Amino acid sequence: MSKGLIVQKFGGSSVANVERIQNVAKRVTGYRKKGFDVVVVVSALGDTTDELIELASQITTEPSEREMDMLLSTGEQISVALLAMAIHKLGFEAISFTGSQVGIVTDKSHTKARIVKIATDRIKKELKVGRVVIVAGFQGVTPDDDITTLGRGGSDLTAVALAKELKADECEIYTDVDGIYSTDPRIEPKAKKLAQITYDEMLEMASLGAQVMQARSIEVAKKFDVPIHVRSSFSDKDGTMIIKEVKNMEDVLVTGITLNKNEAKITICEVPDKPGVAAKIFKELASSGISVDMIVQNVSHTRKTDISFTVNKNDAARTIKAIKKVNSDIGAGDILVDEDIARISIVGVGMKSHHGVAAKMFETLAHEKINIEMISTSDISISCIIKKNLGGTAVKILHEKFNLSK
Amino acid sequence: MSKGLIVQKFGGSSVANVERIQNVAKRVTGYRKKGFDVVVVVSALGDTTDELIELASQITTEPSEREMDMLLSTGEQISVALLAMAIHKLGFEAISFTGSQVGIVTDKSHTKARIVKIATDRIKKELKVGRVVIVAGFQGVTPDDDITTLGRGGSDLTAVALAKELKADECEIYTDVDGIYSTDPRIEPKAKKLAQITYDEMLEMASLGAQVMQARSIEVAKKFDVPIHVRSSFSDKDGTMIIKEVKNMEDVLVTGITLNKNEAKITICEVPDKPGVAAKIFKELASSGISVDMIVQNVSHTRKTDISFTVNKNDAARTIKAIKKVNSDIGAGDILVDEDIARISIVGVGMKSHHGVAAKMFETLAHEKINIEMISTSDISISCIIKKNLGGTAVKILHEKFNLSK
Repeated sequence: MSKGLIVQKFGGSSVANVERIQNVAKRVTGYRKKGFDVVVVVSALGDTTDELIELASQITTEPSEREMDMLLSTGEQISVALLAMAIHKLGFEAISFTGSQVGIVTDKSHTKARIVKIATDRIKKELKVGRVVIVAGFQGVTPDDDITTLGRGGSDLTAVALAKELKADECEIYTDVDGIYSTDPRIEPKAKKLAQITYDEMLEMASLGAQVMQARSIEVAKKFDVPIHVRSSFSDKDGTMIIKEVKNMEDVLVTGITLNKNEAKITICEVPDKPGVAAKIFKELASSGISVDMIVQNVSHTRKTDISFTVNKNDAARTIKAIKKVNSDIGAGDILVDEDIARISIVGVGMKSHHGVAAKMFETLAHEKINIEMISTSDISISCIIKKNLGGTAVKILHEKFNLSK
Repeated sequence: MSKGLIVQKFGGSSVANVERIQNVAKRVTGYRKKGFDVVVVVSALGDTTDELIELASQITTEPSEREMDMLLSTGEQISVALLAMAIHKLGFEAISFTGSQVGIVTDKSHTKARIVKIATDRIKKELKVGRVVIVAGFQGVTPDDDITTLGRGGSDLTAVALAKELKADECEIYTDVDGIYSTDPRIEPKAKKLAQITYDEMLEMASLGAQVMQARSIEVAKKFDVPIHVRSSFSDKDGTMIIKEVKNMEDVLVTGITLNKNEAKITICEVPDKPGVAAKIFKELASSGISVDMIVQNVSHTRKTDISFTVNKNDAARTIKAIKKVNSDIGAGDILVDEDIARISIVGVGMKSHHGVAAKMFETLAHEKINIEMISTSDISISCIIKKNLGGTAVKILHEKFNLSK
């Protein structure tokens, strides 16, 4: 009798070489020995994906997205076959599948496809006869039988979607860190591993710069209430559970702090303060495929106002170009670009029901003479733009003030 | 209006790197420009297959054949995607497919599957809208949707089977030599490239050691009368046509000469000359998976006889082991192994209707004082076992005597 079903996802660093694949096989079969049914989702070996992208780039700078998916999906296919062999070697039954074989059907948006349905018959059949089922992450297939990929980090999505569809008891995401921390331990060594975090907090953390899990997969986990366990493939210690509600959450104001140094602040000066101007600007940016993050527009006293917003540093040049395209129409003044910024954010579901969290953050920064250039808030986060070189200090003092090392 | 349909197959050396893939793209689009419909079959890039085998061997010495197929089929998938990109780059439409996507259905014999049917709808649809269709060679899929491979050289089979199924006007096999030669040019520099050769002759040449094309694919081409053009991917010169009948074939006695130095001669001495003894021996060898080539048993005068046969050198040790297993039952004498042999063969459909070809061969060898240790003949070939160090000389003198450099 099965003790339950576990979906385990191993990222590229967890299967970077033969020895690590063998370690994964040991871990997986350990769960089989304990009586669990196991479905394993694997990413491509180490740098395989980057090597394939490099190969394509030698041929063309604008590869067809369909052909890129054809190319990149081989990476995971190699991983699943090798892992199946390693599990066989340990004397256990296992069978590998591509996304297509296992029936992960997606829409036709090559390189960033969305899963539309998963046929679980084949997986259930194989689990029933006692096999470990190994599924290639990151990939699916259109109804027309074309191979698709789910975008960077897509293996997380494969795992979460399979866990949901198979009604798994747990979805384990194995990675090279041992959980989610209150902040980046490279910046603040006192950072504490969180035992639990809510989906919403994790989503804020993911979109605010923590790179542990793909944001879309957390959205799906939240939507279908799939419990996720983020943990290290190099140790047996518990990691962090991502769940719906954290016990005693009323007591916790702030769960984590993130720092993002990859944004640039764009300011359009002296924008005429009349209806439709902002719309024109941001519509043009959207149609150029540029995602805008924080947007701040102050109250105007002179019929002219400044609009500031942040974009990814890499998009800064394209942003300027896009604005210049509409500027003759709008009649704004100078466009300023500031890459010397960092965004510091505090995240926590507790702040919803507590006053004074924002004030405490601003006060703490002010006390250290850190000037706040922009502010934006959501239900469960507050972000400030500050000078880049002050980012590390800001993390440390906020980490202390909000008692995150306890 | 299409000028006709050509199936082109490019081997691993023809797509060993980005530059060569680009050359293949140029050749393919050249045919498109001339108005042909083109289906391209590609092998894995250069040494990819060997690298994947090496990776698997680091995990297990006895990999599951299903998982080997899963692993190895990625090699061709990489090739087809890259070639599609290279063709796009030249401004032409192209689309790549795995064996599974294109409907190459095989039996379940993993690593050496046989094609049972090919669904051509998708290919025809894509050809109709003007696309070059690129198919991953060497692979297929079982009715249960498991990936299979067709064995070494299987891409030739993919090409020939597609050419047959699509009723192609020609099937071109691109390789790193510029055609089939009357003998190995490294042994006899006067060797002549043949303009034409029959399927039967090519089959003899292939099984007798010429390694240009996979034997099974020639059998299929013969069965369905698919004309094959073997030519170089590095030049535009015509290669060799493999066809049903060669013009003026009555005039040509011998088409080619092959030399095989990879066999060992096994002699079982003093075998009791009674019914069923030979059967016991060769049944045991068959069940050990050893293929036996030439077999010679002399007339017996003493109720004991010697049986000699040849096997691949690599199978010699296993052969001895197998014979020893049945020998107590049979009561034969010593078992001798001679690896110092070469098999020299002359091949040609013309010899069927001409007397004296064998005599001329034996005379020629005798004149050079080359002793013949074993002889075996077929409708269109005569093979002799001689001392290994005399192989080269034998090739040269026979090549001259049968006028093959003209």
